[in-house]
Amino acid sequence: MAENMSNKSLGEHEIIRLIQTRLTPMQGILVPFGDDVSAINLKGAQVAVLKTDMLVGKTDVPKGMSLFAAARKAVVMNVSDFAAKGALPVAVLVAIGLPMALATKEAVAEIAEGLNAGAREYGAYVVGGDTNEASDLIISITLFGTVQNILALRRGAMVGDILAVTGLFGRAAAGLRLLLGEGRALGRLRSVLVDAVCSPMARLREGLALRGDYVSASIDSSDGLAWSIHELAQQSGVGFLLDTLPIASEAMEFAVQNGVDPVELVFYGGEEYELVLTVKPAKWAEAQALIQAVGGCLIPIGKATCEKQIILDFAGQKRIIELRGWEHFKG
Amino acid sequence: MAENMSNKSLGEHEIIRLIQTRLTPMQGILVPFGDDVSAINLKGAQVAVLKTDMLVGKTDVPKGMSLFAAARKAVVMNVSDFAAKGALPVAVLVAIGLPMALATKEAVAEIAEGLNAGAREYGAYVVGGDTNEASDLIISITLFGTVQNILALRRGAMVGDILAVTGLFGRAAAGLRLLLGEGRALGRLRSVLVDAVCSPMARLREGLALRGDYVSASIDSSDGLAWSIHELAQQSGVGFLLDTLPIASEAMEFAVQNGVDPVELVFYGGEEYELVLTVKPAKWAEAQALIQAVGGCLIPIGKATCEKQIILDFAGQKRIIELRGWEHFKG
Repeated sequence: MAENMSNKSLGEHEIIRLIQTRLTPMQGILVPFGDDVSAINLKGAQVAVLKTDMLVGKTDVPKGMSLFAAARKAVVMNVSDFAAKGALPVAVLVAIGLPMALATKEAVAEIAEGLNAGAREYGAYVVGGDTNEASDLIISITLFGTVQNILALRRGAMVGDILAVTGLFGRAAAGLRLLLGEGRALGRLRSVLVDAVCSPMARLREGLALRGDYVSASIDSSDGLAWSIHELAQQSGVGFLLDTLPIASEAMEFAVQNGVDPVELVFYGGEEYELVLTVKPAKWAEAQALIQAVGGCLIPIGKATCEKQIILDFAGQKRIIELRGWEHFKG
Repeated sequence: MAENMSNKSLGEHEIIRLIQTRLTPMQGILVPFGDDVSAINLKGAQVAVLKTDMLVGKTDVPKGMSLFAAARKAVVMNVSDFAAKGALPVAVLVAIGLPMALATKEAVAEIAEGLNAGAREYGAYVVGGDTNEASDLIISITLFGTVQNILALRRGAMVGDILAVTGLFGRAAAGLRLLLGEGRALGRLRSVLVDAVCSPMARLREGLALRGDYVSASIDSSDGLAWSIHELAQQSGVGFLLDTLPIASEAMEFAVQNGVDPVELVFYGGEEYELVLTVKPAKWAEAQALIQAVGGCLIPIGKATCEKQIILDFAGQKRIIELRGWEHFKG
């Protein structure tokens, strides 16, 4: 990850690795450090699942996103990691950092309602928290739930497994450009794209539906589809050959109207909360049926290969999908 | 709480209450919102205990405190809440917000080592986390553990119960003044006082030792002794008559040398992590013996009364201990 090195500061993933080397590892842990969630063995064949992820105003809340939407999104982005491991969240804890200017009844009420909405949509409850004064809006969420088994780790993909996603990509990347004033879109197109950024959904139903023996590796796509596929590849020791570009029609429309590369929107946007899974070929039909039964969609986009590269072979063109994703400290 | 109102912004406790009114309550919850920890019923007569609390550089890390000390303290202040409920922490999650200037190997390593030290001192492990770019240093910690029973809630003190603390007060308040350049102290005295701010200890052994039927109400003293006693009083519907001033000798020395009111140092300092408990009189001797058996100290400082006031009757003087504590947004 050459992009992670700069003379100015470390990249986010490098910081996480650096932290990990200084920590005493817990023995017998079910999920390796750095996977989507943490998991702790409990009595009675139960596993506690935990996840913490922080939303920061400066980098995660574009202009045009309300406090309600920001607070809801802070919960949803954590639920997405639970979804990727097939875990139902039960309880939400929240630590809030508020700039003095936001310590008003209106702002606090909007944040609280966004947190509650995000939790209740997925069946969870906000059960506790902490509030502090800070220079920037900070919403740090922790989720807790229990499972009998983790759906799948990031490692586990085998050569020949089908790479699949739970939805089409590119809307959020286009919507973010619109909020940042880059590119144009009107009417329904604009509102669909901006909504994708401001009101994301986590694929919890899909993650829960796939519990069983269908999935060999799983991650969510919050850091960008390219990053997620590379992470599955690296953790599993495989590569991937992609034979389709999973682009949403609205994202394609935006790309055409604004002269933007559709591959860029699909692979390098981030802030999209689909699941990226590898499915055992013998279980494909059953897995797809299970997802459709809960109102979702399982889209095959390629296969795991021996070659340690991510290649997109689509519309008569072969492209290497590079490891590039949006990272904090690299903005 | 008249101090909580200002035309500028809301106070921390008021914000927490305002948030609570917007949340859908979880049914059958064991610990009310706003108590030291959250607790969720699990299968097999187990209870999951969760706590999140955030350290913010601007308000919680005085000049002179190292990154190691700040990170360790972020863990310890959460462990203190677990101690107040008799819960052993098992796993620590951390969400870090780093200003660009701190995204260096040295700074990150120091933070990671502080987190690990804080966790390992109390038997827990850091199992996961998240890193973000932020304007200020943010260390948001979540603890997880399981118990069979919560030691005690904040409510539960009965008239006649003995009010007790697990240590003497005032060192941290004096140490903070020294770090802020207010007041003078030299040599060993200075180092003891500054250490009390920079390297606090949580009373986990004490909280675990008292599990059983000894304690009727419990809280930690992180927001100041006065605030903690008022909170026990308000939640339990009692008052307290205090017959002693639990001041550490070094704090008294600082008070005398600097012409500071010792009562101010003891009751209104905050950032001290003692337990403040009410003990059933019939169980007092046994409770005190249990604490001494783990190397601790249980100091009686007064009794719960019918009168809904906190009165200090000490050295021939009666003083009302007002509700005043350091609050975010009120600095």
